[in-house]
Amino acid sequence: MRLSQNITKTLKDAPADEQATNAKLLIRGGFIHKEMAGAYSYLPLGLQVIENIKTVVREEMNALGASELLMTSLQAKDSWVISGRWSDELVDIWFKSQLKNGTEVGFGWSHEEPIMMMAKSLVKSYRDLPISVYQFQTKFRNELRAKSGIMRGREFIMKDMYAFSRSADELNEFYERTKEAYLKVYKRIGLGDNTFVTFASGGSFTQFSHEFQTVTDSGEDTIYLDRSKRLAVNEEVYNDEILAQLGMKKDHLEKVKAAEVGNIFNFGSIKGEQMDVYFNDQSGQRQPVYLSSYGIGVSRLMGVIAEHFNDQRGLIWPTNIAPAMVYLLAIGNSKTIEAADKLYNILTARGVAVIYDDRDVRPGEKFSDADLMGIPWRVVVSEQFIKNGLYEVKSRSNNTPQQLRADALIKLVKSGNLKRAS
Amino acid sequence: MRLSQNITKTLKDAPADEQATNAKLLIRGGFIHKEMAGAYSYLPLGLQVIENIKTVVREEMNALGASELLMTSLQAKDSWVISGRWSDELVDIWFKSQLKNGTEVGFGWSHEEPIMMMAKSLVKSYRDLPISVYQFQTKFRNELRAKSGIMRGREFIMKDMYAFSRSADELNEFYERTKEAYLKVYKRIGLGDNTFVTFASGGSFTQFSHEFQTVTDSGEDTIYLDRSKRLAVNEEVYNDEILAQLGMKKDHLEKVKAAEVGNIFNFGSIKGEQMDVYFNDQSGQRQPVYLSSYGIGVSRLMGVIAEHFNDQRGLIWPTNIAPAMVYLLAIGNSKTIEAADKLYNILTARGVAVIYDDRDVRPGEKFSDADLMGIPWRVVVSEQFIKNGLYEVKSRSNNTPQQLRADALIKLVKSGNLKRAS
Repeated sequence: MRLSQNITKTLKDAPADEQATNAKLLIRGGFIHKEMAGAYSYLPLGLQVIENIKTVVREEMNALGASELLMTSLQAKDSWVISGRWSDELVDIWFKSQLKNGTEVGFGWSHEEPIMMMAKSLVKSYRDLPISVYQFQTKFRNELRAKSGIMRGREFIMKDMYAFSRSADELNEFYERTKEAYLKVYKRIGLGDNTFVTFASGGSFTQFSHEFQTVTDSGEDTIYLDRSKRLAVNEEVYNDEILAQLGMKKDHLEKVKAAEVGNIFNFGSIKGEQMDVYFNDQSGQRQPVYLSSYGIGVSRLMGVIAEHFNDQRGLIWPTNIAPAMVYLLAIGNSKTIEAADKLYNILTARGVAVIYDDRDVRPGEKFSDADLMGIPWRVVVSEQFIKNGLYEVKSRSNNTPQQLRADALIKLVKSGNLKRAS
Repeated sequence: MRLSQNITKTLKDAPADEQATNAKLLIRGGFIHKEMAGAYSYLPLGLQVIENIKTVVREEMNALGASELLMTSLQAKDSWVISGRWSDELVDIWFKSQLKNGTEVGFGWSHEEPIMMMAKSLVKSYRDLPISVYQFQTKFRNELRAKSGIMRGREFIMKDMYAFSRSADELNEFYERTKEAYLKVYKRIGLGDNTFVTFASGGSFTQFSHEFQTVTDSGEDTIYLDRSKRLAVNEEVYNDEILAQLGMKKDHLEKVKAAEVGNIFNFGSIKGEQMDVYFNDQSGQRQPVYLSSYGIGVSRLMGVIAEHFNDQRGLIWPTNIAPAMVYLLAIGNSKTIEAADKLYNILTARGVAVIYDDRDVRPGEKFSDADLMGIPWRVVVSEQFIKNGLYEVKSRSNNTPQQLRADALIKLVKSGNLKRAS
């Protein structure tokens, strides 16, 4: 896209009340706009990052055999009363409102109860199972404080998946496959090395849930990490008894700050029993449906990546989720601009996403915006090299430029696109 | 997708409290699930229809040079107080709630005020203009009654676009181009013949807004239509003076019911002045930004299409937005099932979206579900024809089947995909 025709604009300063590094960088880079504390709009480049993350997540969920659907944000009180979770004392992050006739409605902070109600109407027989469904949904959580930018918003984008199984074994098989799928997701978006399966509290349903925790100083969680085993224990369940149970040794563990980037949950048959969701098995017996749920905070992931991949000059997007592969600019006269226009058309036609900085501003401003925005490759068209048909290409994470012809340039910038992890 | 592994399920009956034809058909066909009056979840096939409509709309908005972004549902009171539209008396469809500290927040029923606040922070100079942005956003409207299925929901999906211009002329040029783009959208999704540009009230900002009205008995609006001119006047502005002004003759007009499927609005410089959004022009003068806004109800369109394209057997999706092109089923023994499995793989590999009815149910049930779901082509694998390498192919809108080899079949079902209207 041509920067001169786009709403995208870098800013010298983030709003004075903004504390989080991720939000400061993303606002300054023109990726998000702060509507209020904990609620950020996604400007075109920010939305592109979100969509790139969603594409990775979607591919891995589809590979599990799950189908995408889209539930409502508006929630009927009835289904939440059954589980007791309508109560503001039990769930202290509800946004609630009222219909004109005085009926209370909630705005979805989770969709476990409504998906169970849906399953109740669609699942009758063992033939209808197993099934798994997921959605990318805006969640609303009325957080007391919202100081972590898009890492903890009052409104945020989440992928939540629900699997309905006929037995504990069937559930466990899907649960383990999903664990692997989650690790593929983090690997593909650049957080693989720093993200660890972590034992966490299972609430009232099961002993443990599993979190996926990315080690970062800005994380809100504390975990005890065994790097060699690539396993961790969340502080909330960290004690001698549990370590012994998990076969983990205290002196192999590092205490580190981490951000939760995924959480998966085994409800067993408890939700089915509680909400009266049963199926008829092959012998005609009524059996409770087994539920497991699987969350990834999509917008939170974008925040964690912004916290993790940056330097003093700005953001450094991993290639698989970068909003564009090339930041193109021309230095100098009408000839170089003409050459840049031409290269822009060639790159676009070859399927390379380009931010073309065609603004009428100083080259220095363009260079610093290229760095601030964190686009993987910067391509400069200058008089010096264009007469020999060469373009200057530099990686955001490496300071050595190369001079390349168009074909070699395209090959180089396309090589950065990681394919689906196998 | 294999129907046996998907949550999709057709139902004999829609919920007893459901009155609207669109919702009855879409629920029975397995496209949507009713959460409460006016709030429907999109099951996998329903979401696919929504995504297909979005793709058409997105392509046409991008062709106008607009960029996609995503704003928040949570709305700060401040920006709406400026325009007076925070008032429940002026705007009687707000859903409102409160932050923990007692601050009131709203849930977006429109985004005009917040986008003006965003423009205020991003637009400073004539160099920043013109720009146009759009989003696909969930809107919340606290309707007193919600009896029209997905044609008028309390929660629905809308494409809203906002254009910021430097002058009335620049605005008008974009406005006229968008009018054409809208007509292309309706043409591509199958409503072109029945959708008409309609003069409607301009509120307090301008004499007229323009609606796009699709003629249908289930519509909530009454319009006066001149078919030969392909122009209409909404009842709300229908009088002798206005007809004279528009050069329309009373005796050329038909009074018909219609559903509004789009609405475009010229605010001129009034919103800019009201909300203090100014830019510096080339001579350094401060000038108000000109705003125009452009809405298409995406989920409403799906409802209008369901109302418009059906018969006693069920839905009949236009090919461009159908959730799949082929409904595949086998009759008989393991040989035909094997052949159907093979054809399913071939079609999928060739990029044809298929619903493969591999359920263990009677053929009659499969035939009637194929019709109820309204998939453009039904393909039957039977012993009679498969021995000669032939498949039985029938269009949903035509009762005469043909026997074709796989290649001819693929050519036929792919020919139905309309390309982008030029």
